[in-house]
Amino acid sequence: MPRLTQAQAPLTRSVEVVDEFGQHAQVDIPAERALTLYVDKRELVTLMTLGAHPEWLVLGYLRNQGLVQQADEIESVTVDWDVGAAAVKTRSGLEDLEARTAHRVVTTGCGQGSVFSGLMDQVDSLALPDTHIQQSHLVRLVDIMRLQDTTYKSAGSVHACALFTLTPSADVELKIMVEDVGRHNAIDTIAGWMWMNPQHRWDRVDKVFYTTGRLTSEMVIKAAQMDVAIVVSRSGITQMGLEIAERLGLCTIGRATHRRFLCYSGKHRLQLQPEWAERPRA
Amino acid sequence: MPRLTQAQAPLTRSVEVVDEFGQHAQVDIPAERALTLYVDKRELVTLMTLGAHPEWLVLGYLRNQGLVQQADEIESVTVDWDVGAAAVKTRSGLEDLEARTAHRVVTTGCGQGSVFSGLMDQVDSLALPDTHIQQSHLVRLVDIMRLQDTTYKSAGSVHACALFTLTPSADVELKIMVEDVGRHNAIDTIAGWMWMNPQHRWDRVDKVFYTTGRLTSEMVIKAAQMDVAIVVSRSGITQMGLEIAERLGLCTIGRATHRRFLCYSGKHRLQLQPEWAERPRA
Repeated sequence: MPRLTQAQAPLTRSVEVVDEFGQHAQVDIPAERALTLYVDKRELVTLMTLGAHPEWLVLGYLRNQGLVQQADEIESVTVDWDVGAAAVKTRSGLEDLEARTAHRVVTTGCGQGSVFSGLMDQVDSLALPDTHIQQSHLVRLVDIMRLQDTTYKSAGSVHACALFTLTPSADVELKIMVEDVGRHNAIDTIAGWMWMNPQHRWDRVDKVFYTTGRLTSEMVIKAAQMDVAIVVSRSGITQMGLEIAERLGLCTIGRATHRRFLCYSGKHRLQLQPEWAERPRA
Repeated sequence: MPRLTQAQAPLTRSVEVVDEFGQHAQVDIPAERALTLYVDKRELVTLMTLGAHPEWLVLGYLRNQGLVQQADEIESVTVDWDVGAAAVKTRSGLEDLEARTAHRVVTTGCGQGSVFSGLMDQVDSLALPDTHIQQSHLVRLVDIMRLQDTTYKSAGSVHACALFTLTPSADVELKIMVEDVGRHNAIDTIAGWMWMNPQHRWDRVDKVFYTTGRLTSEMVIKAAQMDVAIVVSRSGITQMGLEIAERLGLCTIGRATHRRFLCYSGKHRLQLQPEWAERPRA
């Protein structure tokens, strides 16, 4: 297992504002820090992050970009906020790092925006697990998210991602919730956390992602890479997000608030129970 | 002036969804297209865009990344949606293109996420015009945006940016509103449009930006690069957005809906008229 620091930093900052009545007030805004990632002393990228879990973020970034295949390729991740640097030490170097980071795609993701172009090529090689979700559990999942104590509630302007599992008794369980100023950072952080918690045997459990952000192509690809066949969002979907989800047979559910939702793709994975819907509004 | 194609493509696509009552329905989702940008036949970047104004987007991208200083360095922009390509022909080549695109920063922006690292270095060299706004005009600006007919209203999941001018009679006038799946695309598109409309003598008029997205560092830097000293957002601000705005003396106003707002920085540019505020809620 990689050795990680546990770099701490405040997640919000109090600032003085003037409101429409001309009154001065203090409000919290989310922190945002530049974290420059060095792999074996070579600079790779600078991530702008809230900074809640920088070590998991770094691990998950390397994983989701396809730059590292196994956690044990990494010896350590050392984050130092004083210099805004994350130093990654690998056990035996990363192959082709130069070549694999040569292309840049600027994407629509809210947050971390770069996906190296090799990523799309991997889509067709992905096979998703046979996960299904009942409407009652979807409603429960959305309820659990609504009740979380979050930086969003105190400071706004951050996105949340969460990983749920569906247990054999078909109940839904929140495993981890991560917020970040970029929602791709949030999902990458979950990927890093999963690597550090292999005792859950992720390959054997049914997993569902929740995100407050839109279901873009990147979100769908990252979910699939992490063996997740169902993604739930408070927001909507973009065309490329939908196209890739359809290609993968991945279930995308958007506009999920309270008991409402729209299922865009992978409808066979959703077991409808319309008795769980709200009454239609007059 | 550069010669531009006028590549058209539908902005929304109708898709079939299943809702919480188990009912099938058609909803519109925003289009999202990959546009690969070639400068003098060399591949630069792939942008994911709604596709409303791809030629202005390309111009504004080159401008806001600091890769092109003057519109007349560009001979033509040719967009072909069949192959998802934008071919830029320059008059005499771009200097140092290789070197200037070598660094990558993955940022928090909702949308277009990459800013080449040279950008931050430019912040301190920027001087903003002496623009001020009255609270009554801010209220009017927010009203104008609320009444726009938008892709957001029909399909959701897009961000809008708009450019307003403050006329000598101190009224507020909407010049252009752009939506995109990435809000940085939206602001870049406005930058491109400004280059194509030099008759407005942008250097001589007071300008205000409106964005539906968060006020991140990138949004603030891009506004300043475009000589805009006041930025208004429906959303909040991030810490780095605020720090850079303070450094620049740029006025950031967030949470702007109806008559409400919070002014985070550059407060001297906002002329308060508390009589324009809503009555406080009981």
